[in-house]
Amino acid sequence: MADTTTYSVAGMTCGHCVGAVTDELKELGGVTDVIVDLNSGAVSSVNVTSAVPLETEAVRAAIAEAGYELVAQD
Amino acid sequence: MADTTTYSVAGMTCGHCVGAVTDELKELGGVTDVIVDLNSGAVSSVNVTSAVPLETEAVRAAIAEAGYELVAQD
Repeated sequence: MADTTTYSVAGMTCGHCVGAVTDELKELGGVTDVIVDLNSGAVSSVNVTSAVPLETEAVRAAIAEAGYELVAQD
Repeated sequence: MADTTTYSVAGMTCGHCVGAVTDELKELGGVTDVIVDLNSGAVSSVNVTSAVPLETEAVRAAIAEAGYELVAQD
């Protein structure tokens, strides 16, 4: 069964940011869907659906690679 | 002699926006340099240096192609 987790990400401001984060997260093994609720200038919610549970540190690294910061995980 | 003009552009929020506008403007004939002073959430200043004077409508179209709006020209 698919696993969906919501991450809070700081620093995203526009559609390009959404694309960069989405692209990096989709490169993680098992990730099937990424949905971003952009909250420009504040903290955005990023919902990641994966076939297997993801390691938080892998998610954190992917978000950092895109240039943003993981600040919380629900 | 090189011609430098400052344009005011609305809607740019991050480095990706800067890159998109810079790329489009550099495709205009004669443009040799583009420098953006990003003012996230407000109006950014875009300095364009060109070997020949640019037509404002061509600059406006390039900025629109990147997804932003030319609001003034100094």
